[in-house]
Amino acid sequence: MQEIEELAARLRAFAEARDWEQFHTPKNLAMALAGETGELLAEFQWLTPEESATIMESPAGPRVRAELADVFSYLIRLADVLGVDLPQAAHAKIDENERRYDADAYRGSARKAPPLSGA
Amino acid sequence: MQEIEELAARLRAFAEARDWEQFHTPKNLAMALAGETGELLAEFQWLTPEESATIMESPAGPRVRAELADVFSYLIRLADVLGVDLPQAAHAKIDENERRYDADAYRGSARKAPPLSGA
Amino acid sequence: MQEIEELAARLRAFAEARDWEQFHTPKNLAMALAGETGELLAEFQWLTPEESATIMESPAGPRVRAELADVFSYLIRLADVLGVDLPQAAHAKIDENERRYDADAYRGSARKAPPLSGA
Amino acid sequence: MQEIEELAARLRAFAEARDWEQFHTPKNLAMALAGETGELLAEFQWLTPEESATIMESPAGPRVRAELADVFSYLIRLADVLGVDLPQAAHAKIDENERRYDADAYRGSARKAPPLSGA
Repeated sequence: MQEIEELAARLRAFAEARDWEQFHTPKNLAMALAGETGELLAEFQWLTPEESATIMESPAGPRVRAELADVFSYLIRLADVLGVDLPQAAHAKIDENERRYDADAYRGSARKAPPLSGA
Repeated sequence: MQEIEELAARLRAFAEARDWEQFHTPKNLAMALAGETGELLAEFQWLTPEESATIMESPAGPRVRAELADVFSYLIRLADVLGVDLPQAAHAKIDENERRYDADAYRGSARKAPPLSGA
Repeated sequence: MQEIEELAARLRAFAEARDWEQFHTPKNLAMALAGETGELLAEFQWLTPEESATIMESPAGPRVRAELADVFSYLIRLADVLGVDLPQAAHAKIDENERRYDADAYRGSARKAPPLSGA
Repeated sequence: MQEIEELAARLRAFAEARDWEQFHTPKNLAMALAGETGELLAEFQWLTPEESATIMESPAGPRVRAELADVFSYLIRLADVLGVDLPQAAHAKIDENERRYDADAYRGSARKAPPLSGA
């Protein structure tokens, strides 16, 4: 079984065993995802860019790892409830961005375009 | 190759080809992740819980799929830059939550505890 | 003195007394604002719309009030550092929205347009 | 009339004229606030701390002002619906933070404590 499907199955079973599926509407899960992202953000807010690069070796490291896990878990649960295949959707978006952001035209510039996903 | 590592490799190559690694500090990527999560949230904000359950069949469906892809891509890129194994971190967190939220004690209640991750 | 300017002055003095102005770049303050908004969001994530309407009478009430205060404080501090007059900016945006969303054309519909600000 | 109450009254009338009060549950307004905060964040995500300090003189300046107005408007509307007096809540929180973060003990350190609000 692939990584995402395996985690989706575990999270589904976790919710079922506690009868928490009633709370897991897409609206509520999107809110929970955003709440966890806010906690992740808070770990970085007062750091310089340089400090942020070595955060995993700092006392905040385990918290950052746990927040990444929370964001990932809610994202997988939300996609599962919506019936979206995350890796497939991500590959399709990267295909699109490779066409949209020509490597030569956009080299070294965050001004011309938002790097990575095109926001 | 596993799903996450394959996507991480594609996103890394995408950034390298455009010399965008200089912008991809963990601090900046955490902000980009939060920005995309905000866009995802905006798709759900005026929907009833019931409407949110069928959003993929609505005109907003393709946008929701694209936003999920963006959130997923930035999450993978951030974890890659930080050296965090996302599936491993998620399994560890679910192990912890299975111990923490006893299925019988927490059944059917979102009051006693935040469902899924324990915030 | 007006309400916002009075709070801006207190927050400025608070930061100066602790030599925290060095951390209060617009980038960092925008992150802190988003982090606090995430905490506010977390208070509402598992509630039905109906439950959310009476949250102030629930045990979460004091936490919601404190989170609103945090969001407001960071917003004022960010606007102060950027030199933006918040009430003036808000009135200008509402003027624009009154032109953009004709009351008769948009009545009762969240489908045709995002209510309030036009996202 | 004070600044906040004046804006709250305008936003209330704006919603009433369009019959949008039905969408303005505290849950939905908290989501809209978070969505707008995400858009504000996106303006800062690729900037260095130094670049963020002069953003108002850049082409992004008018967008930042409009996003601050949107965040402020949703915050006022949410507090109005919840019956929370924002300036009063903010003063109470600053009083608490002045007791909690002794100016001498916390001077110049973002490590010992999150500046401003104590997160």
